Amino acid sequence: MDLKFKVLKETSYGARLGEFKTKWGNHKTPMFMPVGTQATVKTLSPEELRDAHSDIILANTYHLWLRPGEDIVDHAGGLHEFMNYKTGPILTDCGGFQVFSLAKPKDISEEGVKFKSHIDGTDLLLTPEKSIEIQNKLGSDIIMSFDECPPYPVTHDYMKDSVERTLRWAKRSMDANKKRDTQAQFGIVQGGEFEDLRKWSAIETAKLDFDGYSVGGVSVGESPETKLKMIEYATKYLPKDKIRYLMGVGEPIDLIDGVIRGIDIFDCVSPTRLARHGNALTLDGRMNIRNHKYMEDFTPIESDCDCYACKNFTKSYIRHLIVAEESFGQRLISIHNIRFLTRLMESIREHIESDDLKEFREEFYNRYYVKKSTK
Amino acid sequence: MDLKFKVLKETSYGARLGEFKTKWGNHKTPMFMPVGTQATVKTLSPEELRDAHSDIILANTYHLWLRPGEDIVDHAGGLHEFMNYKTGPILTDCGGFQVFSLAKPKDISEEGVKFKSHIDGTDLLLTPEKSIEIQNKLGSDIIMSFDECPPYPVTHDYMKDSVERTLRWAKRSMDANKKRDTQAQFGIVQGGEFEDLRKWSAIETAKLDFDGYSVGGVSVGESPETKLKMIEYATKYLPKDKIRYLMGVGEPIDLIDGVIRGIDIFDCVSPTRLARHGNALTLDGRMNIRNHKYMEDFTPIESDCDCYACKNFTKSYIRHLIVAEESFGQRLISIHNIRFLTRLMESIREHIESDDLKEFREEFYNRYYVKKSTK
Repeated sequence: MDLKFKVLKETSYGARLGEFKTKWGNHKTPMFMPVGTQATVKTLSPEELRDAHSDIILANTYHLWLRPGEDIVDHAGGLHEFMNYKTGPILTDCGGFQVFSLAKPKDISEEGVKFKSHIDGTDLLLTPEKSIEIQNKLGSDIIMSFDECPPYPVTHDYMKDSVERTLRWAKRSMDANKKRDTQAQFGIVQGGEFEDLRKWSAIETAKLDFDGYSVGGVSVGESPETKLKMIEYATKYLPKDKIRYLMGVGEPIDLIDGVIRGIDIFDCVSPTRLARHGNALTLDGRMNIRNHKYMEDFTPIESDCDCYACKNFTKSYIRHLIVAEESFGQRLISIHNIRFLTRLMESIREHIESDDLKEFREEFYNRYYVKKSTK
Repeated sequence: MDLKFKVLKETSYGARLGEFKTKWGNHKTPMFMPVGTQATVKTLSPEELRDAHSDIILANTYHLWLRPGEDIVDHAGGLHEFMNYKTGPILTDCGGFQVFSLAKPKDISEEGVKFKSHIDGTDLLLTPEKSIEIQNKLGSDIIMSFDECPPYPVTHDYMKDSVERTLRWAKRSMDANKKRDTQAQFGIVQGGEFEDLRKWSAIETAKLDFDGYSVGGVSVGESPETKLKMIEYATKYLPKDKIRYLMGVGEPIDLIDGVIRGIDIFDCVSPTRLARHGNALTLDGRMNIRNHKYMEDFTPIESDCDCYACKNFTKSYIRHLIVAEESFGQRLISIHNIRFLTRLMESIREHIESDDLKEFREEFYNRYYVKKSTK
């Protein structure tokens, strides 16, 4: 399905303001996707996601394949109906990353990956065809081609073999998609930290003419400098008229740095995972709400934030909920953290418009990461 | 504080339709209170409680004393401000029940009860004066006098001593209340299954002229017949013009049977506790949503229920959330279970009005408890 992606403005260094369309409406990029691993963004309702200005969510193919099973979601009428999420598009990943990270041991062959379920140890086989079949049944708006996610670091030889296989899997994934008229499909660029392999992966994947392109294998343990190179090596060779999606990246500065290098969409579990540990995102950096100094702090997490948590509850109360292990606390911080990231994306879009994104990056970096002493 | 309780109608056997006033408005009885143990009704927001037609909540003095501490709640401006719960009154218990059930070992003297915190083992002493001081600081609308909650069963001799002590503690609790102009205060009737002791406890407690009376020591392991007698033995001797509150009782038939015996208010953790284990309340009895037969059941928990969960989500989805241990599932069933009980109280009030509560009791009992085969 053509997402009718348009680049509305591009800076000299390649940051893009854009928009694309789905049946749910027009969507502005750069954008951030909260993750609803098991068909629920942890602790949140669809209305809370909408109110936090989340315009799209991601759901995990691997988890939904295992539980409740793609047939049940299909019989429900697809993920939107199953979850009663009707305010924006859903993107599903291909299951590859989870198979390679959660399910061990694994056995990679040309056919696909054999592994054991992390829930009950059942022997399973995930192939490009199976991944696409599951995603077709899940009925998401954007599906991912099946790829190999090698560990970091691996040798150039290993990565070359892996990229070749992922290219063959991309072609098989494309051929397997029986719903290309209603489900857009993205290809995935791999290649680790090797420019030649990222370039080759980007150019060859783009030849398959996907509706968008993901950059995979980033944020896997590499240094910050390597991370930026991995992104540059991929975006440099991707077509300018298609969406570029950096998978699994959610650290605030990485979002800005990704946009500066031409990325349009990001996803990460971080806003909800941090919330479960009592960490709130603020312009002054991560706030650990468990800190004693918030015991009698009767102000919101961020006083100028328009989220439900900040408009209605104090740090003192949220701290109490987190310390007492009450899930309403995780819910409040999750709402705030998602809103923090959707506001950050709004700021990023404004600064592309006003063409001062790099200045904004320096200001944000200094306030969020450097001035720790004022917190 | 006078709650201006009025009995609007009383049946021949003593079931009462009533109302009382607080600064939050007029409140209809019989009514059910969800429990917000740690200043949060587990998984729910204040708006969700309001939308489930919950008109009052209970918070636990023992838990809030230990965490976050009554001074923090006081400095926040009281529980309503701390929790941002602004749609109805809050009742706090006296801490006695938790001290006797959670915190062991304990040492009861005339002064009060010495025990160890269930959180960190700290040595603590709860007295009538301390309980009231904490509740004064919590700023609830209705506070409870401090009582002893003996185990079940105990001998008549033990219970007689205990009731005598609870009466002395009731007097001390009354004298200790520095905020009687803004916080109504209830006395507690004990006496176990012994009619003479329940009678004595009721009559002597009523002499202290509290704003309402609780019936304690019920649902502690006694038989159903004994439970009904315990209630009757107390309500029979309580003044007709004051609210009667049966503590810790939430089984649906017990609510109807309690009202038939003249009870006006109930509280119980059951709607949220059952939800955590995947149990939903329905007119056809408890539904264990984990059951395989709900895997592809794309209908709501109860099709004629007006709660958020039933209007928006299917059994299939909620089952998936509970099986996958996603807290949004607990939240949806909690909303439904609370709405089930507030609807039950609405039905009870209607059937007092139409004077056929006992017929309603039989119908409800047969459908909820007997016709198990149709589920």
